[in-house]
Amino acid sequence: MSSSVTQPGRDELARLLAGAGSAYDPEGVEALIEGVLAAPAEIGTGWHVLVADPMPQALADRLEALRAAMAAGYHNGLAADDFARLPRSERLARLRKELRSRGLDGFIVPRADEHQGEYVPPRGQRLAWLTGFTGSAGLAIVLRDRAALFVDGRYTLQAAAQVDTGSFELHHLIEEPPAQWLATVLKNGEVLAYDPWLHTPHEVERFHTAVEKAGAVLRGVADNPLDRVWPDQPAEPVAPVVPHPEQFAGESAESKRTRLGRALQQEGIAAVVLTMPESIAWLLNIRGGDVPHTPLPLSFAILRQDGTVMLFIDRRKLVPGIERHLGNAVTVMPPEQLGPALDELAAEGDRIQVDPATAASWVFDRLVEVGAKIHRAADPCLLPKACKNAAEIDGTRAAHRRDGAALTRFLAWLAREAPNGRLSEIPASDRLEAFRREGEYFRDLSFPTISGAGSNGAIVHYRAMPETEKRLEPGTLYLLDSGAQYLDGTTDVTRTIAVGEPSAEMRDRFTRVLKGHIALALARFPRGTSGTQLDGFARRALWQEGLDYDHGTGHGVGSYLGVHEGPQRISKAANAQPLLPGMIVSNEPGYYKTGAYGIRIENLVLVQPSDGSAEREMLGFETLTLAPIDRNLIQPSLLDEDEIAWLNAYHSRVRQTLTPLVDPDTARWLAAATEPIGPL
Amino acid sequence: MSSSVTQPGRDELARLLAGAGSAYDPEGVEALIEGVLAAPAEIGTGWHVLVADPMPQALADRLEALRAAMAAGYHNGLAADDFARLPRSERLARLRKELRSRGLDGFIVPRADEHQGEYVPPRGQRLAWLTGFTGSAGLAIVLRDRAALFVDGRYTLQAAAQVDTGSFELHHLIEEPPAQWLATVLKNGEVLAYDPWLHTPHEVERFHTAVEKAGAVLRGVADNPLDRVWPDQPAEPVAPVVPHPEQFAGESAESKRTRLGRALQQEGIAAVVLTMPESIAWLLNIRGGDVPHTPLPLSFAILRQDGTVMLFIDRRKLVPGIERHLGNAVTVMPPEQLGPALDELAAEGDRIQVDPATAASWVFDRLVEVGAKIHRAADPCLLPKACKNAAEIDGTRAAHRRDGAALTRFLAWLAREAPNGRLSEIPASDRLEAFRREGEYFRDLSFPTISGAGSNGAIVHYRAMPETEKRLEPGTLYLLDSGAQYLDGTTDVTRTIAVGEPSAEMRDRFTRVLKGHIALALARFPRGTSGTQLDGFARRALWQEGLDYDHGTGHGVGSYLGVHEGPQRISKAANAQPLLPGMIVSNEPGYYKTGAYGIRIENLVLVQPSDGSAEREMLGFETLTLAPIDRNLIQPSLLDEDEIAWLNAYHSRVRQTLTPLVDPDTARWLAAATEPIGPL
Repeated sequence: MSSSVTQPGRDELARLLAGAGSAYDPEGVEALIEGVLAAPAEIGTGWHVLVADPMPQALADRLEALRAAMAAGYHNGLAADDFARLPRSERLARLRKELRSRGLDGFIVPRADEHQGEYVPPRGQRLAWLTGFTGSAGLAIVLRDRAALFVDGRYTLQAAAQVDTGSFELHHLIEEPPAQWLATVLKNGEVLAYDPWLHTPHEVERFHTAVEKAGAVLRGVADNPLDRVWPDQPAEPVAPVVPHPEQFAGESAESKRTRLGRALQQEGIAAVVLTMPESIAWLLNIRGGDVPHTPLPLSFAILRQDGTVMLFIDRRKLVPGIERHLGNAVTVMPPEQLGPALDELAAEGDRIQVDPATAASWVFDRLVEVGAKIHRAADPCLLPKACKNAAEIDGTRAAHRRDGAALTRFLAWLAREAPNGRLSEIPASDRLEAFRREGEYFRDLSFPTISGAGSNGAIVHYRAMPETEKRLEPGTLYLLDSGAQYLDGTTDVTRTIAVGEPSAEMRDRFTRVLKGHIALALARFPRGTSGTQLDGFARRALWQEGLDYDHGTGHGVGSYLGVHEGPQRISKAANAQPLLPGMIVSNEPGYYKTGAYGIRIENLVLVQPSDGSAEREMLGFETLTLAPIDRNLIQPSLLDEDEIAWLNAYHSRVRQTLTPLVDPDTARWLAAATEPIGPL
Repeated sequence: MSSSVTQPGRDELARLLAGAGSAYDPEGVEALIEGVLAAPAEIGTGWHVLVADPMPQALADRLEALRAAMAAGYHNGLAADDFARLPRSERLARLRKELRSRGLDGFIVPRADEHQGEYVPPRGQRLAWLTGFTGSAGLAIVLRDRAALFVDGRYTLQAAAQVDTGSFELHHLIEEPPAQWLATVLKNGEVLAYDPWLHTPHEVERFHTAVEKAGAVLRGVADNPLDRVWPDQPAEPVAPVVPHPEQFAGESAESKRTRLGRALQQEGIAAVVLTMPESIAWLLNIRGGDVPHTPLPLSFAILRQDGTVMLFIDRRKLVPGIERHLGNAVTVMPPEQLGPALDELAAEGDRIQVDPATAASWVFDRLVEVGAKIHRAADPCLLPKACKNAAEIDGTRAAHRRDGAALTRFLAWLAREAPNGRLSEIPASDRLEAFRREGEYFRDLSFPTISGAGSNGAIVHYRAMPETEKRLEPGTLYLLDSGAQYLDGTTDVTRTIAVGEPSAEMRDRFTRVLKGHIALALARFPRGTSGTQLDGFARRALWQEGLDYDHGTGHGVGSYLGVHEGPQRISKAANAQPLLPGMIVSNEPGYYKTGAYGIRIENLVLVQPSDGSAEREMLGFETLTLAPIDRNLIQPSLLDEDEIAWLNAYHSRVRQTLTPLVDPDTARWLAAATEPIGPL
C-alpha cells in the first residue's frame, strides 16, 4: 500500500507522536493502521491506546484523519467492486502462471487460515479473493486446465451466484468430495501443492490418499503461491489485546497455566503447542479483536510443564500494562519466532503435544523435520474452557437476563410495527442491535444476525442484504437468530414469529420443533452421555412425520469467546465427548420449507447435575435464554402434559425475570405473550 | 499327544481306511482327531465325511472308538481340574523363565486369537490357560515380579473367583486400563513383548504410546513364549467346512467375489487381505464349525481385483466336493502360505487393503517389511454381509417363526412348571433347547443360553453352572436370553418372566424397559441415522427416573453366522455407521438390580424403508422375533396410547403367526398371554 501522507503532514504527525511520548514514527503508524484496517470496524478508536496512552486529542484527530484517508484506498479483496480492479479470470490466470513457474500442476485453496478457525481476517480470505465465494466453508482446487470449488449444501445457491462457473466447476463438498474429484482428474505424475499452514494433518492425510490413488504427488510448499499474486494483500489485523478481568474469568491465568502444566507433567509431556487463539485467550485471560464477533487475539503459544508460556504475537497489539497482567511466566515473542522455538523445544528431546485436528500441518512438519517426539492429542485448553466455572456461570446468567430484556423489548416493538407491513429485514435487525447495545458490558454481536422473512427464513445461514431482504408480510413467518458478546457472557437465541395469521401447517411444524426443543430441555441423562446420544430427542417428533432439519441441534458456546466452540456438540455427527457440568450448548431444532418459510427455536442451556432420586449420577439442562416463544404458532393439541407444563413454567420464569428489566409497554406485552397455555 | 492306538489296532484301522478308499493312514487320522477334539462337540460324527465318503459302518465305529479313547486323555487346558496337573503358579513361573531366557521383561497375553473374533478355539485360550479366567474379554500382562489381569465390569466377580489374586492383580479394563498401569510399573529400558498375531495395529499403537511413556520398549516376537511352555497345547480345530446353499445365501459366491473385486478395482486397489472367518464364510458361501455357536471356518483369504480368491485353510477340513462349489477362481492353500503370498502380492507394487481394526498386526508387519503399499480400510465384506438380501430376509423371518414357536412352547411349559417351585436354571434352559432342536434347519444354539433366576438375572453375562444355579421361586423374575443357528437364519431373544406375583418396583422397572423397547420398535428415522443416535430412545424412560443399564441396546446379527456382527450397532459408543435397509439388529434394553433381579426385553428387528408420507427417505424397524411379552409385569398406567397400541398389535401378530405352529395346550396359553391390554 502506497503512503497516504504528504511530507509536511508527516512531519506534523512525527511531532505529535513525539509529544505524546509514543514509540511510533509516522511510518510505524501507517503500518499499524494497515493492520487496524484489516481488523473489524468494531474496534473504533480502541486502537489509539496502542499508539500512546494517554492520547492527546490533537494526535487522536490526526490518527483518525490518517485512518480515514488510508481506508479510502483500502482493498481487502473481498468487496464485489474489487473485482473491477482485478477481474476473477485475471486472478486465476496469475495464480496458474505462478504455479507453472514453480513446476506445480495444481494448488489447493481452502477457506481456512493459519488458525483453522471459523472467522478469517481479510489477509486470509484467499478463497474469496480467488473465487468471489464468501461462505464460511469451502475449498477450491486449481489445476492447469480446470478448477473446482467445493461447498456444502448451505452454500450451493450462494456459490452459484458469486462465482464465475465458467472458471470454476461447482461441486458438493460432502457428496462429491475433493478427494474423489482429484482421483479422477489428476494425471499420473502431476504435482498438487498445498500450503501446510492452511491445513490440519488430518486433511493433508485425506488429500494424500486421493492424490496417491491417481499416481500423482502431493507437495507442501513453503511460500503460498496465491499470496505472491495477490496485489495489496491486506496486512495481519491489529486490534488491541486487553486483559480479561478475573471477575469474569473466575480463575487466574496463573492458576490455569499451573494446572495445565501439571497435567502435562503427569503425562510425561514437556510442552504443548497451542494454535487456537480462543485457547490462548482462555489460558492467559486476554481478549482481542482481530476477527469479527469473537474477541480473538490471533497468536500462537507454547505452554510448558512448569506453567510458563511463550506467546507468539504481534507485540504492537498489546495494550500498555498488559505485561503486568501476563506476568513473568509469560514471554512475548514475535510470531516468526515460533519455528525456531519449536526447533529448540525438539532439541530437548522430550515429547511435545500438538492437536492434529486443529493445528496446522506446518507445525507437525517442522517438528518432524527436527526429529521431535510428537504426542498427538487434543488441545488441552478445550475441555477446561468448555466447562464454565462458577463466575462464568453467574456471568452468563446475568448476560442472558440483559440479552433477554433487549430481545423482549424488540419483540414487543415488532408486535406493534409488523402489522403495518412496511418493516423489512435489515431495519428489524438494526433495531434489535440498538436495544442490545444499551446493555451493560455489551461489546459486539456474537455473529451476523440472521433476519429472515418468509422464504428467506428457509435459508439456514441467510444474511440479509439490501438486494435480498424482504418485508415482514402477513401470513408469513419471521426467523430471527441473533446474539451478543458481553464481557460476562456470550448469547445466541432464535425466535420464530408469526406475522399475521399462520397456516395450520406452520403451526403443526412449529409445534413439532417445539416438542423437540422441550424433549431436549427436559432430558435427564447419566454422566458420560454425549450430544450425539441426545440429538435424536430433538428430532423425534419431526421424524415421525417424515421431516427433519439439515443442521446440528446444538453447539458449544464460550464465555465472552466463540459463539461456536467445542469439544461438545449435539448433532448427528458421531462425537464421543460427554456433556459435562458447566458446559453451555445451544438447543435449536428447526424445520425449513424451501421457498416458503423457516422455523427454529433456540435457547442456550447449561449442563447441570440433575437433582432428584437416581441410582446413577444424572445430568440435565438449565435453560439460560430468556425470551417468550410465540404462542400464536403453537398447536396445543399436539403437546402432552409434560410439554405444556414445561412451556408454562418457562414463560412464567421469563415474565418474572424480565418484567423488572423492561419498560411498562414491553411489560404489558410480555404479560400477554407469556400467559399459560390451558390444559388440553 | 501320545498315540492312543496299539499296533494291532493300527493295522486294523489301516485296513479299514484303505478299504473305504480314504486318503488317510492311521497317523493322519489321529492327527485329524486331535483337531476334531479341539472343535466344539456339536460336530458329532459330522467329521467322518472328511475321512471317507461314503463311510463304511465298521470304519465309523472304529473312528468313534478312537476318538473316545483320545478324548479321555484330552486336556484343553481350560477345565478346572486341569490346574491339578499343572498348577497356576507353575504356569506363570514357566512363562517367566521363558521370557527371561529371551531377554524379555514382560509379555502381553490377550484373550484374542489370530482372527480377533468373539469365540476362540481351545488352542487360542492362552489367557484362560495362564490365569484360569474364562470370560470373553480380558487381558493379562506378565512382568518379572508382578502380573495383572484386566477385565471389564461384567467380569470382575468372575475373575476374582477364577484367578489366583496372589499372582495376578485384578484391574478394571476400562477404568484402570493396561496402558495406564504400564506407564507406572514399567521401568526405563525394559522390554515388553507381544505376539503380533494376537493384536490389531490399533491395539499395538495404544501399547506403544504407553510403553514409550515409561521409557521402555515394545517388541513384537515371532514365536509366542506362552505356546512354548504350554504342554499339550490343543491342535487347531478341525470341523467340516461345507457349502452354504444359494437358497439361503441369496447370491452366488461368484457374484459376491466379482462385485467386491470390481469395487477394489474402482478404488485402485490390487487385493484385500481378509482375516475375519465370518467374512470369508459370507464371501465364499461356506460354513464351518471350528468355534462354538458360530459356523466359522477358521481361515484367511486374499481377494483380488479380478474376483479370484486365495483361501488359506487346513485342507483336511474341506468336505468332499467343495472344490466344485468354490470353483476355479478360488485357490485353496495351506495357512502357512499366507506370508509368502503377501510377499508376492507386495512385489507387484500395487496397493493392498487391510483392516487395521480387525486384522492382526502381523499382517501389517509382514507387508511393511517387504515394502508393500498398504491401504487401511474396513473389511469390504462387513457392509454387504450386514445388509441382508431378499432370500436372507425371507430366511430369517422363517427361522424366527420356528424359533418363536419353540420359545412359546417353552413359555407355556414354564407357566405350568414354575409354580411347583422345583424348577431350576439348567433344566429350564435344557428344556428350551430340546424344543428348539425339533425345528427344521436347526444346527446349534447361537450362544450359551443365559438362564438367570432371581439375583442371577442381574448378572448381565451370567451362565448357569451347577454350583451357581438357582430355583425359580415365587416373587422373583426369571431372565432367559437365548437363540439358535438355523440354516436360514440366526435368532436371539430375551424374555423376562414373573414367577408368582411381582413387586410394584419390578412392574415399574419392567414397564420402563418396555417403553424403551417400544420407542425403538416404533422409531422412524432418515436414511443416514446411526444406532448411536437412536440408543437414547431406548433409555429415556429409565433415565427420567435416574436409572440405566450398562450394555448396548442392540448388536448386529448375521444370517446363519455370528449372533454378534458389525459394523452397525445401537449403543452409547460413538459409531458413525448408518443403519441401512436389510440390517438386522437386536432391540434389548434392560434394567438390573444387583443381588435382586434382572430385566431385559429383546427382539431382533430388521431395518426397512418406512412407508407413509415423508419429505425424506425414512427408515424404520420390522420386528422379527415372535414371542409373548409377560403381561403380568406391565404397569399399564405407565404406557401411553401409542405404546399400548404397539403392544397389542405385536401380541396379535405373535398369536396369529404362532398358533398354527404349536400344540393345542400351548395355543390356549398363548391366547391368554397375548390378550390385549385395555385402554387406560
